[in-house]
Amino acid sequence: MLMELFLNPHDERSMTVQLYEQLRNAITDGRLPTGARLVPTRSVAQDLGVSRSTVTDAYARLTAEGYVEGRRGGGSFVAGSIQPQPREEDAEAALVPTPAAAAIRRYDEVRTTRLYGEDLPTRARFDLTPGRTDPQLFPTTTWRRCMARALWQFPGQYADPAGSSALRLALSRWITQSRGVTTSPEKVVVTNGAGHAVDLVARVLLAPGDVAAVEEPGYPPVTNTLRTHGVTVVGVPVDEQGIVVDAIPPGVKVVYVTPSHQYPLGVVMSRARRLELLRWARRQGAAVLEDDYDSEFRHTPRPLEPLHRLDRDGHVIYVGTFSKILSPGIRLGFAVVPRALLPTVKAVRRAVDWCPPAVTDAALTSFIDEGHLARHLRRARRVYRDRHRAVCRALTLLQIPRVTRLASQAGLHVTVLAPGMPPDDELVARASQRQLLIGSLRPTYQFGDPRPGVVVGFGALATEDVPIAIATLEDCLV
Amino acid sequence: MLMELFLNPHDERSMTVQLYEQLRNAITDGRLPTGARLVPTRSVAQDLGVSRSTVTDAYARLTAEGYVEGRRGGGSFVAGSIQPQPREEDAEAALVPTPAAAAIRRYDEVRTTRLYGEDLPTRARFDLTPGRTDPQLFPTTTWRRCMARALWQFPGQYADPAGSSALRLALSRWITQSRGVTTSPEKVVVTNGAGHAVDLVARVLLAPGDVAAVEEPGYPPVTNTLRTHGVTVVGVPVDEQGIVVDAIPPGVKVVYVTPSHQYPLGVVMSRARRLELLRWARRQGAAVLEDDYDSEFRHTPRPLEPLHRLDRDGHVIYVGTFSKILSPGIRLGFAVVPRALLPTVKAVRRAVDWCPPAVTDAALTSFIDEGHLARHLRRARRVYRDRHRAVCRALTLLQIPRVTRLASQAGLHVTVLAPGMPPDDELVARASQRQLLIGSLRPTYQFGDPRPGVVVGFGALATEDVPIAIATLEDCLV
Repeated sequence: MLMELFLNPHDERSMTVQLYEQLRNAITDGRLPTGARLVPTRSVAQDLGVSRSTVTDAYARLTAEGYVEGRRGGGSFVAGSIQPQPREEDAEAALVPTPAAAAIRRYDEVRTTRLYGEDLPTRARFDLTPGRTDPQLFPTTTWRRCMARALWQFPGQYADPAGSSALRLALSRWITQSRGVTTSPEKVVVTNGAGHAVDLVARVLLAPGDVAAVEEPGYPPVTNTLRTHGVTVVGVPVDEQGIVVDAIPPGVKVVYVTPSHQYPLGVVMSRARRLELLRWARRQGAAVLEDDYDSEFRHTPRPLEPLHRLDRDGHVIYVGTFSKILSPGIRLGFAVVPRALLPTVKAVRRAVDWCPPAVTDAALTSFIDEGHLARHLRRARRVYRDRHRAVCRALTLLQIPRVTRLASQAGLHVTVLAPGMPPDDELVARASQRQLLIGSLRPTYQFGDPRPGVVVGFGALATEDVPIAIATLEDCLV
Repeated sequence: MLMELFLNPHDERSMTVQLYEQLRNAITDGRLPTGARLVPTRSVAQDLGVSRSTVTDAYARLTAEGYVEGRRGGGSFVAGSIQPQPREEDAEAALVPTPAAAAIRRYDEVRTTRLYGEDLPTRARFDLTPGRTDPQLFPTTTWRRCMARALWQFPGQYADPAGSSALRLALSRWITQSRGVTTSPEKVVVTNGAGHAVDLVARVLLAPGDVAAVEEPGYPPVTNTLRTHGVTVVGVPVDEQGIVVDAIPPGVKVVYVTPSHQYPLGVVMSRARRLELLRWARRQGAAVLEDDYDSEFRHTPRPLEPLHRLDRDGHVIYVGTFSKILSPGIRLGFAVVPRALLPTVKAVRRAVDWCPPAVTDAALTSFIDEGHLARHLRRARRVYRDRHRAVCRALTLLQIPRVTRLASQAGLHVTVLAPGMPPDDELVARASQRQLLIGSLRPTYQFGDPRPGVVVGFGALATEDVPIAIATLEDCLV
């Protein structure tokens, strides 16, 4: 049994006594459990650079006192009679989180732990929380093959903070062809998901005290991330054309938007609003963070080009993720960064967490290059489109007065306004009783009065379960 | 060929014209390369929800104008005669990084790009940059087996931001046994390396304007990371007992230290200094970030317990990484966090990049649980110990007056003071000529006058190459 030992030649106690005491403490507080084999005396002596008798003396004392017993065939083992008494818990109220961090914790407790998190009943019948994908659709065999092949390489030294050049090339081709975002590989930065991309860009563009704007309602983790940088975040309302550009207060340096599919309302930002937002950015010298988190899954023709494509002078940073396309567990996303910011984004990424994991990087490269991504998307689109239709139909049939389903053309969720629905506490309690996981609309409002409603995620819901799941949701709402 | 198309029913141009223009633009600016097959008209029509004739009309016009050609066996392909003219580069000087981010970029340019980064000559004969590991030692077959097995699971939905409970249990056992850090699994947070752990803790404990202290000389990426949070960072000198606690200025809320093996000087913090630092932390209500980045590789018995073990009231956050133990490409590290901070650390992590990648998490779990980590470490320790001895011996034989090798008992680097050595620019130029990669000591001083010297990393240097590599280094220094 491997165990770190500490010997101090200047200690008044002999080496044997130091060794004896450390082993005894490890046994009594349970670090060396009953039945564990002690490292042979020869190895310990060699490791510690002490004489072997120092070690055998310590072992002998432990044996004599009953902490250790010899076994037939040799070796010393922690005796079976020991009742370990784990070291007392530390009195740990010493350190206090900052107010911004504490606020994130409160949000997390209210929202995530309840609806998503650790307390997630593993046996929930239906999972309607947004942000989930269908495990059945995940191309396990192909992905495994790509990963297994990538594993033949040594996972590498520290690498390029933007990801391998092969992956950036594959991503740039794919983004260019499938999303209409023209980019060269150099401008692509591979990240650990879209949130990580937002975090990196925020560090480069926003100093503490600067003001950033987000959509209200919106995606709270982004607000929370920005706040950990000491940034003041303001919420800007969203109407049927997308974010209300006129309502962006003066002094905003970065605005975060979801133009292809506003989260959570589902609005597609109009062309007029897009051009207005870009004019605003140009006038202010501000940045637009365009999060195109689920544009692969549009269920009607997409009428509008991404902001990034309309931008002619480098005000837009385009962000995407593989969490929706493949699976959140992949932990990969990307940003397309204006050339002027690129070296700084890379330097900051290198300082913080250096580079993407080498094997996943290589696996995703071949997954794209060999056409598996395109095939997977064709298949997933069909399935999610059918499911989307089924969800919309089922929601239309709801028997609750005043419940409105918002228009929805893309993605893996549909939002429903439900005035008069119970408070979130009760909603969650009702849903748990029915083994349903649901996401309330309320926590997506972080600045003003929340509208009651539900963000109905259908990524992880089997299409045939849609009617019964939505009927169960109805039970919770009335 | 997959390509995203945008159709706006309210556009004055017909659908056919919109489609024609987008495809033509994609061809002329090279997004659809010569020879690429256009998606069959039927699929496009279905995808976009338009009539098939809309699509065939657009294709016919492209064919008539020579952009596209039919081929025997069917299908439309981008014509061979096209000379794509990539879209003009954006005029991209619009967005400006913050001063803190710009400073990181400057540091990165001076230090990392030159000595580590993208310009790394792949054919360097000897790599003496610190932070590298030996690719020969990486247990490729075993790691591949653990990863391959982990791949049989679906990579998961968003998971626990602290990592899987199985990995936290495995890590807590291993840390407890091998590093003398007593912890329960709940207090372990799995991160993307040690830097990422420091970043998370900083977000929780430090608000913009707060003051943090680091060792001078020290590990600049940590200083840089802290600065991106708007934190004021002060450098505290290190003497032969470690950080000079008396020199920590008032008002410091977090101090970052490397007590087991000071980076870059190699000092082991004395017991007296450890106790003094903990007393200081208690008095100030401050946090101590203990980075134990390479304590697996000590080459003499380690005389002292980690700060974390001496801390009785939750002032120490213990941080470690697998970058040195296994490989930087793994991108995994961990923090042991006082219970009081745990929910906040997890909430912040969830907001930013959610959770560790599922497959690597599962692979590392079995790698530890099945004893592979312990075996790997025994083997690696022997190799690095021999190499360390060889490097120390070779450095002792240097023929340069006034060059001093600092005492070194652990880790994968040895530091040499070399007054009168050439400036870094010239040092690097000389080294490149000799196909040597080296790390200067100067950039590790971020607050005062740097001492000239070299941080001799030997992780990636074959033991038999040590004499010739150090002799080459000598050539560069004189």
